[in-house]
Amino acid sequence: MTTGTRRRMGVEERRQQLIGVALELFSNRSPDEVSIDEIAAAAGISRPLVYHYFPGKTSLYEAALRRAAEDLAQRFDEPSEGPLGARLQRVMGRFFDFVDEHGPGFSALMRGGPAQSVSGDPASSSAATALIDSVRQAAYEQIVSHLDLVAVPPRLELVVRSWVSLAESTALLWLDGRRTERAALELQLVHDFGALVAVAGAYDEEIAGVVRRILAQEPPDGPFTDLAERLLALLPAEAGTEVPAQAAPVE
Amino acid sequence: MTTGTRRRMGVEERRQQLIGVALELFSNRSPDEVSIDEIAAAAGISRPLVYHYFPGKTSLYEAALRRAAEDLAQRFDEPSEGPLGARLQRVMGRFFDFVDEHGPGFSALMRGGPAQSVSGDPASSSAATALIDSVRQAAYEQIVSHLDLVAVPPRLELVVRSWVSLAESTALLWLDGRRTERAALELQLVHDFGALVAVAGAYDEEIAGVVRRILAQEPPDGPFTDLAERLLALLPAEAGTEVPAQAAPVE
Repeated sequence: MTTGTRRRMGVEERRQQLIGVALELFSNRSPDEVSIDEIAAAAGISRPLVYHYFPGKTSLYEAALRRAAEDLAQRFDEPSEGPLGARLQRVMGRFFDFVDEHGPGFSALMRGGPAQSVSGDPASSSAATALIDSVRQAAYEQIVSHLDLVAVPPRLELVVRSWVSLAESTALLWLDGRRTERAALELQLVHDFGALVAVAGAYDEEIAGVVRRILAQEPPDGPFTDLAERLLALLPAEAGTEVPAQAAPVE
Repeated sequence: MTTGTRRRMGVEERRQQLIGVALELFSNRSPDEVSIDEIAAAAGISRPLVYHYFPGKTSLYEAALRRAAEDLAQRFDEPSEGPLGARLQRVMGRFFDFVDEHGPGFSALMRGGPAQSVSGDPASSSAATALIDSVRQAAYEQIVSHLDLVAVPPRLELVVRSWVSLAESTALLWLDGRRTERAALELQLVHDFGALVAVAGAYDEEIAGVVRRILAQEPPDGPFTDLAERLLALLPAEAGTEVPAQAAPVE
C-alpha cells in the first residue's frame, strides 16, 4: 500500500487505489457501517476528492464488489495439468483464501443480508445478484472444463453447479464460528465433488465413464483414491447382500 | 376456494383468505408485478377492504412469505419410523411439491432477486432473510433428528446443513428450465445425503458409526443399499490397488 506517500496519482491509478481501500473496509463491515469519510481517511485523501472519482458510496461499493468478483472468479482458474483431485485441492485452497480475506463481507453479501446493498437502493442489490451469478458461472465453466467433455450431460451440469453452491454454503457455515479446521473442509469439498459425481455416475453410464477416467488418472496417494479406498472399507460389510455380478466378491 | 360466494367472513378468516390469494399471486410473479387491485379482484373484495386488513402491499407480502415459510418447514416433518432412505425420499417428494407449487416466487426469493423485497423497502428484505434462515434451521433440525444422536459432531452438523443448501440449490437449478426429471432429482438428493455423510464418515470414526447404523437398517431395495452396490461396482476396478486389509478382496 502506498497510501502514506501522498504522491500524485493518475486518475485511473487513484480510482483503483480507492476501490482497493473500499474493498478492504467493505470486506469487514456492512456498507451502511462504512462512511465516505472513513474511505477518504484510509486512502489519505480528502472527502471531496473521493467524490471527484466516484459519485457516491453506492458506485464505490459496486466497484469494490466487481473487483472482488473478478478476484474470486480467478481463484477458480487452474491449468489442465496433473490429476483432477490435486487440481481441485489447489482451487479450494485459493477459494478459502478468498473467503478468509473477505470473511464478513462475503458472508453478508452471500446471505443477502443488509450488506448486500446500500440501504434504500434496490439497484445495488440486483447489481450484486448479477455479480454473484457471474462468479458462479465462471466457477462452473472452470470446473467443468477439467472434465474434458465435448458436451456436458444435463445431469452432470447440475451436479457441478450444485457442487459450486455446496462450496459456497460450506464456506459460509465455516465462517459462522470456524468450528471445523479449514484444511479439512477444503479436502472434504474435493471429496464431495468426487462423491457427487460418482452418485450421478452410479445411475448414468456416460457419467460413469467420466468417473472411471478420473479415477484412472489419480495417483495412489491422491484424494480420490484415498476416499474410494476408505468408502470401500466403510460400505461392503453392510451393503454386500446383493452385490451385482461385476462387483468385487464380498465374504 | 370460496372467493365467488361473497359471503360475510370473520376478520381472521378474511385475513387468512387474503394471505392465501396473495401467496398464489406472489408465487408466480415478483411482488412489484402484483398490485393490490389484483389481489382485491382475486379475493372478490374491494381495494379499500384489502387496506382494512393490511396496511399495504409490503405487510401482505410478508404475511404470504410467512405462510409459505411455515408450509415449507412442515414439509420436512417426517415420523421417525422405518428406514432412513425411505423417510428422506418422502421428505424430498414433499419439498419438490412445494417448489413446484411456488416455482417463480421460490426462485426469485432464494436468488435474492427483485422479488425478495418490495422495491425500496429494505426492511422487507431482511424479514425475508430471517424467514429463509428459520426454514433452513427447521429443515436441519428435522433431518438431524432422524440420525438419533444425543450430540451432533460439528462435522456432521456441517454436512447436514450443507445438504439442506444442496437441496435448495438443486431445486433452483431444476426450476431453471426443468431439464432433468423431478423424480430423478429427488432420488439423487437422497443419494447425495448418503454420499456426503459417507464421505464425512470415511474420515471420522464417530460418523462412520452413523453410516454403518443407517446401512444396517436399510432394506435390500432401499435407495442407500442400491447406491452402495452401484458405487461398489463403479469403484473397485480402478481404486483397488491399495485396498486396506479390512476391505473386501479385489481380484
